[in-house]
This record gives sequence, C-alpha cells and structure tokens, in this order.
Amino acid sequence: MAEVAAPGLAAPAAPAAPAVLDAVAALAELAGIGADPVRGGWSRHLLDDADRDMRAWFVRTATSLGLEVEADRNANLWATWRAEGATGPAVATGSHLDSVPGGGPLDGPLGVVSGLAAVSRLMAEGHSPAHPIRVASFAEEEGARFGVPCLGSQLLAGEIDTDRVRGLTDATGTTCAQVLEDGGYDPALIGHDPDRLADTALYLELHVEQGCQLAPLGHPVGLATSILAHGRWRVTITGRGDHAGATELVSRHDPMLVAAAAVRSARARAVETDPAARARATVGKLQVVPGGSNAIASEVRLWLDARAEHDEEVRDLVARVVADVEGASAAEGCQVSVSEESFSTRVEFDGGLTDRIGAALAPAFGDVPRIPTGAGHDAGILAAHLPTAMLFVRNPDGVSHSPLEGASDDDIRAGVDALTDALRALT
Amino acid sequence: MAEVAAPGLAAPAAPAAPAVLDAVAALAELAGIGADPVRGGWSRHLLDDADRDMRAWFVRTATSLGLEVEADRNANLWATWRAEGATGPAVATGSHLDSVPGGGPLDGPLGVVSGLAAVSRLMAEGHSPAHPIRVASFAEEEGARFGVPCLGSQLLAGEIDTDRVRGLTDATGTTCAQVLEDGGYDPALIGHDPDRLADTALYLELHVEQGCQLAPLGHPVGLATSILAHGRWRVTITGRGDHAGATELVSRHDPMLVAAAAVRSARARAVETDPAARARATVGKLQVVPGGSNAIASEVRLWLDARAEHDEEVRDLVARVVADVEGASAAEGCQVSVSEESFSTRVEFDGGLTDRIGAALAPAFGDVPRIPTGAGHDAGILAAHLPTAMLFVRNPDGVSHSPLEGASDDDIRAGVDALTDALRALT
Repeated sequence: MAEVAAPGLAAPAAPAAPAVLDAVAALAELAGIGADPVRGGWSRHLLDDADRDMRAWFVRTATSLGLEVEADRNANLWATWRAEGATGPAVATGSHLDSVPGGGPLDGPLGVVSGLAAVSRLMAEGHSPAHPIRVASFAEEEGARFGVPCLGSQLLAGEIDTDRVRGLTDATGTTCAQVLEDGGYDPALIGHDPDRLADTALYLELHVEQGCQLAPLGHPVGLATSILAHGRWRVTITGRGDHAGATELVSRHDPMLVAAAAVRSARARAVETDPAARARATVGKLQVVPGGSNAIASEVRLWLDARAEHDEEVRDLVARVVADVEGASAAEGCQVSVSEESFSTRVEFDGGLTDRIGAALAPAFGDVPRIPTGAGHDAGILAAHLPTAMLFVRNPDGVSHSPLEGASDDDIRAGVDALTDALRALT
Repeated sequence: MAEVAAPGLAAPAAPAAPAVLDAVAALAELAGIGADPVRGGWSRHLLDDADRDMRAWFVRTATSLGLEVEADRNANLWATWRAEGATGPAVATGSHLDSVPGGGPLDGPLGVVSGLAAVSRLMAEGHSPAHPIRVASFAEEEGARFGVPCLGSQLLAGEIDTDRVRGLTDATGTTCAQVLEDGGYDPALIGHDPDRLADTALYLELHVEQGCQLAPLGHPVGLATSILAHGRWRVTITGRGDHAGATELVSRHDPMLVAAAAVRSARARAVETDPAARARATVGKLQVVPGGSNAIASEVRLWLDARAEHDEEVRDLVARVVADVEGASAAEGCQVSVSEESFSTRVEFDGGLTDRIGAALAPAFGDVPRIPTGAGHDAGILAAHLPTAMLFVRNPDGVSHSPLEGASDDDIRAGVDALTDALRALT
C-alpha cells in the first residue's frame, strides 16, 4: 500500500510504510485464544484468561499500528488514531472481544479486527482525517459471565446501577467487583463516563450478520435499521429434592416438570403472538440442582430470553410465559420466582448517519440493503446517546452464537473495505 | 460395656475394654467431609478428594477397632473381625461411603458406620462369633461419577463388562481406568471376584429408609422385601445452536424443546401406567450445550431414571417415553439417541434370611415391618449371588438424595441395636 501513501511520506527519510492489518489473518490468530474443549467453539468471558489474552492482543496490535491505546474505567479498551490536524470528538468504530459460551469466531472479534484493519488502511493510504478515529472493544457484551449483556457500554452510558454491577456474581460466586479488581480496575470508579461520550462524535459497529437476510439478497454487506426490544429473565423454580426411585409420583414436587413447561410455553407463546411483532422466546441456559440422575431436583434455574419489535410486546410475551410457569408450578407444588436481569428497549439506528454511510458505500457496493436485527449490541446501548449505525457482513447460513457461525474470507475483506470507505467519508 | 465382657477378659492383666463406636458421633465426624458449597449437602464420588477422605476415615476407624482392613481389586473396602474360633465364610454387612451430587448425610454412610458400631458392640460385649464378621464399603454405589450405579458390587459379582467400565468417562473426560490407577488400583485387575463371593456367607445391608413407610407404622426399623426393577437411560438430543435473538422461530432446531417434552413425557407415561406396577420415571440430570442465555442450544443431554415392579414394565415405560421424545424431535428437526447406562432387574431379598433376622429382632423390636423399596442398593446386586437382606432405619419425612434426608439420633441408635442383634444371631 506504500504506493498510495501521501506524497509527503514518500521522501527517503520517511518511516517505513505503516503496516496494514489483514483481517482474515488477524482472525486466524485470535482463533487460538479461548477455544472451548467441552462445548466446542470459543468461550471468552470478562477478564478470564481467554479474555485477558484477547485484550493483550488488542493492545499489542493497536500499539504496533501506532495507535494510542487506553482502557477506560469500565474495562472497555480504546485505540485512537489522532492524526495531525484531527480535531473534535472522535469517530468511533469497534465491537467486543468476549463471547457467549461456546460461541463462534466472528461475534464480535470481526468488528474489532475490522476496525483496526480499516484504520491501518486509512493510515497507509495517507488519509488525513479531520477527526480522531477510535476503535473500541467493549467489555462483556454477551453478558455470559455476569448475566447482564453490554455491561461495558451500559456502564459507560450510565444505564445500569453501579452497585448492582459490583454485586453481580458469576457461576462460582465471585463478584463482578472482585473480577474487576483482579483485572486491575477499580470497582469504585465504574459507571457513567460523560467525558468519553462527549469525546465521541458517533459510533459505527461492524458485526457478522446474525440471521440470513443478506445471502438471498446477494449482498456482502448490509446496514442496520433497528434492534428488537429484548430482555433476559431469570426464573428460579424450587421444589423438593428427593430419591428418584423411592418417591411416589403423588408425593413429588419436581421443579424439572415446571421448567419443562416453561421451555414449551416460551415457544408456544411466541408462536401465538401476532407475526408483525416478530416475537421470539428462548430458554438456552438451564441449571439443575443437585443434578443427579437418580435424584429428583430440588431447584431448577432457567433463563428466558424474549424479544419482539416493541417493548410492550416483549413484556406481554413474558407475562404470558410467566403465567404458564406459575400455573405449572402450582400444579406441582413448587415455588417460582422471576427476576429481570436486563431489558433493552427497541433501538432505531440513526437514519441520517446510516444514509451518509450508504452514500459512502455506494461507489463500491451499490445500493446497500437495510435490514433489522434481533440481536443486541453495544451500538444499541449507545444509540440513545450518540448517532449510531451498524454494518453487517453476510453470514451464509445465518448461524451465530455457535461454532458454526461464519463468513467467507472475501466477505470479511469486503466488510473491511466498506468500513474503510465509511470511516474515510465520516472523517 | 466392660461389665458384660466375657469372664476370661475380666482378669487384671487383660487389655482395656475395646472401644465402642458411637454411630451418631461417627456420622457427625463424617459430616465434615465432602460438603458441597454449591448444591448444599455432600458430594463424594469415586476416589475424588472427599471419597478418599471417607475411605481414610474407614481404614483409620476400623483399624482402631482392631479389625483387619483390606481393599479388594474393585476398590471396595472390607474390615474383618476374625474372632478366635470363627470359621467359614464371613457374615457381611455394610453399605457405601460415596453420595449422589449434593446428597444427604446418611445414604450410605449410615450402613457403614452402623456396621462398624455393631461389630464394636459385639466385640465389647464379648460375643464369640462362629464366623468372621465383615463390614463392607462398596465403591461408587450411586454412580454419580461414571453414570453406572453399584459399580463396585457389580464388578465384584461379575455383572458388568470390565472393558466398558475401564472406558467410562466422567464429566471432565477422565476415564474410570485412569481414576482407578490414580487411586492406587490396577484397572487391569477389576472384575469378577469369585473367591471373595465364596468367602461371604450372606450380606445384610442397613440403610436409611427412602420414602416414608415406617413413620406411619410407628416402627424405627424395617426389613426389605424387594427392590423395583430400574435403570438409567442417557438421551442425547442434537439440534442446531444459533442466536436466540436473530433466529426466526420457523428456522429453529432447538433441542431444549425436545428435552422439555421428554421431562413431561416421563411423568405422564409413569402416571398412566397400571398403578400395580408402581411405575416412576424421573429426569434429574440435564445438561445444555453450550448453555448461554442468548444462545439456542446445540445439544441437550438428559438422563431418564425409570422404575417399576417388573422388568418388562420398566422397558415398556421407557419405550413409551422414547417414542414421545422421537416424535417431539422429529417435529423440531432434531436428532435423538438413547443409550442404556444400566438396568437392574427386580430383586426379591432372601425370605429365609429375612425371617431369621426378624426373629432375632423380635425381642427388642416386636414384629418388624416388611417393606418394598424403589431404591437400588449393592445388596440388590449381591442378591443374585448370596443370601441377602436389608434393614431400614426410619426416615421421618422420607426424603433422600437430598440434604434434607434425615433420621433421629434415637432411630440411628435403634438401627445399630437391630444390626447388632441380627449379627449376633447370624454368627
């Protein structure tokens, strides 16, 4: 790329042409971090060994590209290209480096890697941005360790109570405060960061597509219109643990029966919802206590993920599922408690910003499709505070949150091209 | 108890009166081993740290009582009182020291402790047994680590294929062969032990009651008549992992839905069975892969525990549940595989031996109730090879395989009294 460097850098005494990060090669490198031998795929959760290795990679790579790297007080990482003459709040891009348990390779390293790759391309081509460009890696976007998604961006935006966050516990009972402290962060300092928000002009997140809308349209990239309203509810069903062989059926208070009713209800109640609501409800995490094959469970904990176009549709869906669970629980002589772990209101991305990006992409990509998504993102949290947009890279099968998630190398490189074009136009 | 010692031991030069083990105090000591901080109760599984501590307690305690302690090649422990003049095969009692995950304090330490306590009482009272008396602690009765219950007694009796046992894996993927080797056992030597069977005249197992038949009858102890036929089936349901928010309902292949159908079917199919069969079916262990709250599961593994009076009733019950699961799986576009982890045929305990024990107990306990049980035991395995009987100690709430399992101190001591009377009469 040295041949497209700015004229002023072509003199013999100039430093070597800046390195350009190849996104496909970088993702191959990251594939070596956090592979999950039990579930398959990758497991990288807030400040665990794998997440720390991902963070170290980010710092090392961004530093080698000549970016200023810093962590904010909410454990989010930022790498800034402060070019000569660049002023005002930064144009930000990025995503996250954590994963769901046993997740795929691209959600969200693709956005972080593409951000670094695009910045390195802009540097190499001699672009002179009017504003700083910043690549973010948000902490614990999936919420796999502490149950709350978009933890880093919610803290930054002041959208979650910091005492609650400090007190969250992981599966081993360790508090979030302890994990932050062990990771070198001061848990007393987490929370709303208005200075950083004020220093961010806009946020454009690139992400692998989740679902399968681009493939039928024949487009490698798309722009987001909206995110479904969504939330997580923790349902705890308490029965009476007992012997699976010795206990008469009529004497049982088996919370597994109630949990099974919850799983079936979640699907049935989503199916019966008006199709226009695009409602969906899922139980993907369920824990049985004590979990012996010859023991009736004493308690089952399950997590209900519910989503729909509008907030009230989600709340109505959850209410119907909870009513079913309470009915099944009463029939079995169990007790149920339900707590909301998170709720994310419907998000509309910034139409003006999305139009600007669409225009910037038009020369290379034509008329870029606009698609809604059912998946939550840090961009969705920031949308209430900043002009925000999202770029999706085609996922041929649509599978995500699974080791089967993928995108072709060509499409990954097309995503970097698109992000480069967008950042160039926006700065 | 020195005052009832045999006259020959009353001389001044005789050793101090043998110590008598108090079962209640011994159980209090064992309560310090293997407490499960996550599930509650106790978790002690084959040759893990807790099980090794339990085994060390057994060796130390039995040795201190003057018994000969040995381990057989199947990781079962034996403590023998070979009194002067005692000949022929041993009269054996005992139970097991392992537990279900998060189990209660008495299943099966009560039987091991009561055996040692009864022998110490007989020694102290100067009983001169005609036969050796042996206290057994069988390995991995609950099968919590490797899925197969009564592992030690099944190996001893030659009722399980040793290659299969060596290849069993625990939740971390460690083989049973490796665990045995790490515990000081030679996995090449496990299996049928006809010499030890031939050296055992009979086996009388004392156990805390599971279920609640004795309390309404007002009796502290009972004698077993039979064990329900029972088995464990592992059901693996494979779907397609995906994003809980982005995946349309019609595109899902969610194995949780099928697992929920399995749980509900197990109960429904047991309920619809002829009441005379006393059928019961339970799912107490269920694992979700990957187990993220915002991820549709890719696989669910669950264990079906099914029991009924007769073998064919169990098989018929399981066939009906499996048919339901296959139907639900086809509807969801998943795949199901079912494998039998264990099957234990109906057991009738030895009527003649049970009558002899009933007669020995009559002076102190009157007409001891005879009750069936739905729980499997090493005594049930040995019943096909030796005259075998069981003594139950009243469980006021009937709860077992739970930290709530219990028996009063008075009833625990009554159990030791009964076992002492029985062993005295049988030797």
